[in-house]
Amino acid sequence: MPDIKNKPALYTSLSPALLHLYDITDSIVVIIDVLRATSTIATVLFNGAKHIIPVDSVNDCIRIGKQIDAITAGERDGKVAEGLQHGNSPFEYPSSFIAGKTLVLTTTNGTKLLHMALAKGAHQIITGSFANFDAVCDFLTQQQKPVLLACAAWKDRVNIEDTLFAGAVVKKLNEHFSIQCDASKIAADLYSNAEHDMFAFMKNKNASHFNRLSGFGLEKDIQHCLTFNTANVLPIYEDGKLIKK
Amino acid sequence: MPDIKNKPALYTSLSPALLHLYDITDSIVVIIDVLRATSTIATVLFNGAKHIIPVDSVNDCIRIGKQIDAITAGERDGKVAEGLQHGNSPFEYPSSFIAGKTLVLTTTNGTKLLHMALAKGAHQIITGSFANFDAVCDFLTQQQKPVLLACAAWKDRVNIEDTLFAGAVVKKLNEHFSIQCDASKIAADLYSNAEHDMFAFMKNKNASHFNRLSGFGLEKDIQHCLTFNTANVLPIYEDGKLIKK
Repeated sequence: MPDIKNKPALYTSLSPALLHLYDITDSIVVIIDVLRATSTIATVLFNGAKHIIPVDSVNDCIRIGKQIDAITAGERDGKVAEGLQHGNSPFEYPSSFIAGKTLVLTTTNGTKLLHMALAKGAHQIITGSFANFDAVCDFLTQQQKPVLLACAAWKDRVNIEDTLFAGAVVKKLNEHFSIQCDASKIAADLYSNAEHDMFAFMKNKNASHFNRLSGFGLEKDIQHCLTFNTANVLPIYEDGKLIKK
Repeated sequence: MPDIKNKPALYTSLSPALLHLYDITDSIVVIIDVLRATSTIATVLFNGAKHIIPVDSVNDCIRIGKQIDAITAGERDGKVAEGLQHGNSPFEYPSSFIAGKTLVLTTTNGTKLLHMALAKGAHQIITGSFANFDAVCDFLTQQQKPVLLACAAWKDRVNIEDTLFAGAVVKKLNEHFSIQCDASKIAADLYSNAEHDMFAFMKNKNASHFNRLSGFGLEKDIQHCLTFNTANVLPIYEDGKLIKK
């Protein structure tokens, strides 16, 4: 076990509206949007896409998609945004479709938070989801830099699924980092109660986004997004693109 | 069990930086600052103080204290603020000292949040702590108005103790309110893990404010502030003052 004094700090921001509390200029920021942006990002890169261009707005998505002849994708309020070709489900991107291609992606919460972290001068930005859990944890352990686990939440309201992912990371990395942050401890505690069956936990708790997506018939998506290491790659943001490290 | 359609909504804001997400113009807002502002507010009113004037700044506290010849009290960063007579410990206010008197109070987080809720047009503001848990729950159940449980947190960072209190209220009032809010569910889940011994839970989790206060020798305060119904009154904010209903 490393010397506690030499361990880098790990914090959890439960909502984009709390991001301003953290100095991230020396930190690796993990963007977390489990349902479904960061799960889909991992899947798309795992299935061989060239890269993903995350953008803030539907208009930018359409414009850039035309400019570079890329696939446009994104959602607003859990549904395919008007004017875009594809949605935010990992099942829309098998390798037979996405390999070698570029995806321009915009989502309600995840891509917005990524740009906030960029504007705040994050040292490095990666994306995390259960789909690429081990890749994220291995990378953070190797780098030994300060970490901010940044939950995308839902329109700034704290949500269960992103908190669960933060908690899973906290539990896994506990010995490698100095964790003096109540939000991280709350997340780890929540995860401990859920880890035996996260899908059942979300369903039993009547989690808000569980209801939103299952109302659209997307229980299969939820189940998939709560499964570990289905697309175990590390998406890193570099020069305006998310690429597979 | 009342009809779900007619149940008022209950939300939890885990930090003052999330308060703006909630429309509180028709809501009862419960200000929660367990360590120690709202525990002390309950104790001071329970022990017979005339009323409490919560103010934002140390300067206002000194000025108003002189104007009306009241006791000035408050803390910054967990210690008595310079220029004030008393601190933020419930043990400083036995009825032999405080009965019949007026207290002007300023604290790092709790009184600031109260003024934020006031500025946002809260329908009604009360203060909650384990010290007056039953009084708060009974009042909310009787009123049948929408509720926002507003955690004061620590300099906008989510903390364990205020989340625990919100969780205890959610658990108690679950059948009387419509609770479609992940933050409330996370809080209730945390409380379920802690309720058998909240002091041990806080200590074992190395909660940030537990460490801050126990570093000042205030474990006795923490123990007291995590005990139910030691000062079971309902502080309501009316015309610039917290009074005992």
